[in-house]
Amino acid sequence: MTREDSNSNNTVASDPVALVAKLARAGRIAQRALARMTDEARADALRRAARQVQNHSDAILAANARDIAAAEDRGLSAAMIDRLRLDEDRLGAIADAVDAVAALPGPLGQIIDKSRRPNGLQLARIRIPIGLIGIIYESRPNVTADAAALCLRSGNAAILRGGSEAVHSNRAIHAVMAAGLAEAGVPADAVQLMPTQDRAAVGAMLRANGADGAGRIDMIVPRGGKGLVARVQADARVPVLAHLDGICHTYIHAAADPAMARDVTLNAKLRRTGICGAMETLLIDATYPDAAAVLAGLANANCELRGDARARAIDSRVRPVLPEDWDTEYLDAVLSVAVVDGMEDALAHIAAHSSGHTDAIVTSDDRAAEIFLAEVDSAIVMHNASSQFADGGEFGLGAEIGIATGRLHARGPVALEGLTTYKWQVRGSGQTRP
Amino acid sequence: MTREDSNSNNTVASDPVALVAKLARAGRIAQRALARMTDEARADALRRAARQVQNHSDAILAANARDIAAAEDRGLSAAMIDRLRLDEDRLGAIADAVDAVAALPGPLGQIIDKSRRPNGLQLARIRIPIGLIGIIYESRPNVTADAAALCLRSGNAAILRGGSEAVHSNRAIHAVMAAGLAEAGVPADAVQLMPTQDRAAVGAMLRANGADGAGRIDMIVPRGGKGLVARVQADARVPVLAHLDGICHTYIHAAADPAMARDVTLNAKLRRTGICGAMETLLIDATYPDAAAVLAGLANANCELRGDARARAIDSRVRPVLPEDWDTEYLDAVLSVAVVDGMEDALAHIAAHSSGHTDAIVTSDDRAAEIFLAEVDSAIVMHNASSQFADGGEFGLGAEIGIATGRLHARGPVALEGLTTYKWQVRGSGQTRP
Repeated sequence: MTREDSNSNNTVASDPVALVAKLARAGRIAQRALARMTDEARADALRRAARQVQNHSDAILAANARDIAAAEDRGLSAAMIDRLRLDEDRLGAIADAVDAVAALPGPLGQIIDKSRRPNGLQLARIRIPIGLIGIIYESRPNVTADAAALCLRSGNAAILRGGSEAVHSNRAIHAVMAAGLAEAGVPADAVQLMPTQDRAAVGAMLRANGADGAGRIDMIVPRGGKGLVARVQADARVPVLAHLDGICHTYIHAAADPAMARDVTLNAKLRRTGICGAMETLLIDATYPDAAAVLAGLANANCELRGDARARAIDSRVRPVLPEDWDTEYLDAVLSVAVVDGMEDALAHIAAHSSGHTDAIVTSDDRAAEIFLAEVDSAIVMHNASSQFADGGEFGLGAEIGIATGRLHARGPVALEGLTTYKWQVRGSGQTRP
Repeated sequence: MTREDSNSNNTVASDPVALVAKLARAGRIAQRALARMTDEARADALRRAARQVQNHSDAILAANARDIAAAEDRGLSAAMIDRLRLDEDRLGAIADAVDAVAALPGPLGQIIDKSRRPNGLQLARIRIPIGLIGIIYESRPNVTADAAALCLRSGNAAILRGGSEAVHSNRAIHAVMAAGLAEAGVPADAVQLMPTQDRAAVGAMLRANGADGAGRIDMIVPRGGKGLVARVQADARVPVLAHLDGICHTYIHAAADPAMARDVTLNAKLRRTGICGAMETLLIDATYPDAAAVLAGLANANCELRGDARARAIDSRVRPVLPEDWDTEYLDAVLSVAVVDGMEDALAHIAAHSSGHTDAIVTSDDRAAEIFLAEVDSAIVMHNASSQFADGGEFGLGAEIGIATGRLHARGPVALEGLTTYKWQVRGSGQTRP
């Protein structure tokens, strides 16, 4: 390294905006090379990265042990340490997930539509990468591998910034994957791990819209809890793909099948309470005849119920609901319960309180179901299914970079297609415009 | 009006954030009703609005005369006054444009794709409206009608904020269209014209992301000059669909047909110099044999040429180019000219200076054309066609709300489809997630 380089790096290290601008420049150059590779070469690179994760599990687990020890020293919660912890099984699952992304059909070059104009111009919209994606995540080290795989498979470069708790694990996973990617000719800067845990560098990523000396990142995907997502959404000047809350409703319609209503609501609430697709509010039609069995099933499974007066009249174990409960994502074995007077009342409750993630109806009345599916404006609307199916894998997308509840670009589970955009290709024979 | 209403309106009038929040609430309620109408009812409403524009041309022209008189008093430029001026012909064109949007296929309810999962869940992605669109525009009164028509046809409510120069014209067009829309049952608040020209209300629209008491607008479309678009992009906390510049390149490849190269470049530059798809930079391959005829054709048509040393050596009328010219959108009969050494050099120039709007190649070598169409990362890439074709109407979209050069949601000409988003509909038979 020359003296100039050293000075320049010191400047960069002390200036988060300059650091992000440098990473963005390098990422954009690498992205162009990545986009020029064949789809098979990108898939091959991912398979090689997955093999490296398997072959170097010792190094990754040693790095992870340092993170775990530090987390224990700092007294982090058992749940947090569990999210952080890797073992051979979890590493195998990480490698498998990378292989699974390699096995998906590549989205690039796909023709979205084409047409021929009366003047002979031929138009086609074709899928291309978005460009450079910033991923900001918390303590789960598997996100390092998942996000890198999804971005690369869709021809995007990535800048990854993981949580400080997982810094050694993330570096180890990134390093071994990079070795596999390099074997296949993927430029090193196609996946960059933020070299500092300085929070100011996260701020610089969020503002990297290319203006005023900032680098340019095309999209930010926050992966983590509500606190992280809220901070990212509040501060970002770059488009953000995310959901803040998963306040998911299930409406048991008057004409619901009783066994189905019990099974679906039990699963929607309790299969896993900590995922964003878990039901947080149950709406029971006042004329549904079997409400007691639904609430008993949930209460007997140790779900805390908080309900309005009519819900409390059905089961004495239902505790009074507070107004803010209707807007609360419990992510726990707790459920808000309201008794509603028909479809309009249910739709009004959902319009007022849904976070736009996933809302479901249980009914044997197909006309009622179609009204619900048409009227509810959430990213995912379901009929006779557990809201826990709200997941890219369950939707056949193979994987997901996240679930989005915004209105633009992509909604619901976002996977490879959501990481692409398009351009118009126009082929003529010398046409001039009259 | 009761005393309370009056007080509340006074508060709103003095508080732009409260005003926009009020407009947004009203717009969102109207949007839900609009989205429930049949597609044919929305089209019928537009046709009635177009008839009202024709039937009340006297009132619109009288309002327009007030704007013209005020503009003349203020000494606005002849070009500005021409953009502002309406006459029977222009009003007829405005009504025709609304009818044309009514005649387009409606985008809502369209199934983007569907699938059936192994567990029997049936998935479909269907097109729905985005919600509430804010349109911020300058002095052309036709935007009032165009934007209203495109938003309504796609099931979106709109808040329109036109330029102060056109305030009487805009109010008259809005009022007569509203009468036609009301005949067909469209709620009045589905298209709201900002009741004040206070600039602070524009700022409140740009920040209407639903946080902290702000209303929620889902997307902003600025229509106007670079100054307007730049201000909107810098200040907005709501997604913006726009392009800042149209710095469009045409590359005459070594294997270009000489007659085609002359015709296409002349048209691309001079057909209309003031539109965003006009060529601003011409790249001529150093080995292209007929460069002199291209430059002579442009110079003889009174196009000012600014070129590098090699361009100046071809035609003495070429003046020296300044570094900033490569990044300048002239919107005038002025052209930057560079002689480049082959495809890589042309691609590098475009990557460095294109605004990502439209870039074109002229060549008879199809392999070279495909490289160009693949490598250039702009919203529109063209082979053997004039960049002036970059237009929603020319692309068969019927109309456009604007041309976008961002990476997400929609690129190039944006029309009805770009004003929609989608939701996932999941139909099951009681599935629970294992």
